[in-house]
Amino acid sequence: MTATSHACLIIIGNEILSGRTKDTNLAWLGEQLNECGVRLFEGRVIPDVEEIIIATVNECRARFDYVFTTGGIGPTHDDITSAAIAKAFGVPLLLHPEAHRLLQAHYTPDQLNEARRKMAYIPEGASLIANPVSSAPGFQMENVFVMAGVPRIMQAMFDDIRPRLKGGAKTQALTLHTNLPEGTYAAALTELQAAFPDIEIGSYPHFRHGRISTSLVARGHDLARLAQLEDRLDEMIAALGGKRLSDTDVA
Amino acid sequence: MTATSHACLIIIGNEILSGRTKDTNLAWLGEQLNECGVRLFEGRVIPDVEEIIIATVNECRARFDYVFTTGGIGPTHDDITSAAIAKAFGVPLLLHPEAHRLLQAHYTPDQLNEARRKMAYIPEGASLIANPVSSAPGFQMENVFVMAGVPRIMQAMFDDIRPRLKGGAKTQALTLHTNLPEGTYAAALTELQAAFPDIEIGSYPHFRHGRISTSLVARGHDLARLAQLEDRLDEMIAALGGKRLSDTDVA
Repeated sequence: MTATSHACLIIIGNEILSGRTKDTNLAWLGEQLNECGVRLFEGRVIPDVEEIIIATVNECRARFDYVFTTGGIGPTHDDITSAAIAKAFGVPLLLHPEAHRLLQAHYTPDQLNEARRKMAYIPEGASLIANPVSSAPGFQMENVFVMAGVPRIMQAMFDDIRPRLKGGAKTQALTLHTNLPEGTYAAALTELQAAFPDIEIGSYPHFRHGRISTSLVARGHDLARLAQLEDRLDEMIAALGGKRLSDTDVA
Repeated sequence: MTATSHACLIIIGNEILSGRTKDTNLAWLGEQLNECGVRLFEGRVIPDVEEIIIATVNECRARFDYVFTTGGIGPTHDDITSAAIAKAFGVPLLLHPEAHRLLQAHYTPDQLNEARRKMAYIPEGASLIANPVSSAPGFQMENVFVMAGVPRIMQAMFDDIRPRLKGGAKTQALTLHTNLPEGTYAAALTELQAAFPDIEIGSYPHFRHGRISTSLVARGHDLARLAQLEDRLDEMIAALGGKRLSDTDVA
């Protein structure tokens, strides 16, 4: 069993930072990567500024096993990700014959104008990432995977990325809800965390329907250990006069 | 009119990176900051790891006019933000008399246990940020604003932060939807962007109800210039055989 790989997602787009578009890709990718034994360890949200894209990609590709980017690979003037990635790697951006063929198959000759052809320009040495939704491909450059920002396309592209990832052990999660406020069980939970150093325990308060509830999330690699911890958490909640809530109670 | 200030949001929490909790604070803060004449220029999502919090805060507070953090200031063992911020600034974490008084007013003596009292420990020299929801305050240390992660509390804390921000001109946004695909208008839009260098034009494709549509978003400080651009965009769409869609068409 190898160690879990660490990944970073770089979300490229002014529209995310302005609040106009709500990113949903980070949460989706975090869950999917865990299924592959890869841990999403950092996220960056950066504007459509070439120097910032270059600096962020170069910093992150040195620090993480895998880097994913979303956004900025369309046909318009504000789509500058591919050119920035080429500069980050110090290679030219070239018309990729296979990417060009994919666009030729998808568009009529009349539709395949210069702007759309721009989407077939890929950094030299990159391999393509299939886009079954709208044909214009993403690409992989070493440990950097460049994907579209539209969630439906990003998710389809990830199907082509999944087999390329070398993951370690998948993290198993146990989630347990209670009506106790955090401050009531904090000391007992600290003791349990000390007794289960192989498991990462998180505590998250919610306000839903005017009521406070909390979720305890335990993450580890060993299901038997998680089951032991679950028993101890149940004991803790009962000892403090609380009760477990079902998923539907807190939905 | 002063230049727009630049801000960074650091989202602290394993639960965001695992995908279990979907962050909504970034989009909310991006919109609110713009109202204050402050531009959210970068976002970071980092795990609950002390060295990473310290390094990220120190990097970002040097680079941006304002830094905001969310998450990790509760009573449980995984709430390590306040201690990490104190280390980032090289100051001790001390029991803050006013924060302690706020907790004493909110909790009975029985409830105010050691874990909850931890929430009154604040880096030396910081000023408090009021929390009208659950009393435990956030704090400001120089240009760094430390807020809770629960959206309702974070939003209430921001009310106490707003008057402390020195913003520049507020960015005005014009959003316009069309049934044209991006590749059809990309060349014409590049020309318009060149003719309006004072305005930042973004183009965003959507898939909704099985249909492609796009949104054009123009951001600038001069409403008259935005109105001029709107006329030119309308001409562009008509010339290419497209039509504008209403907000409800693309909702």
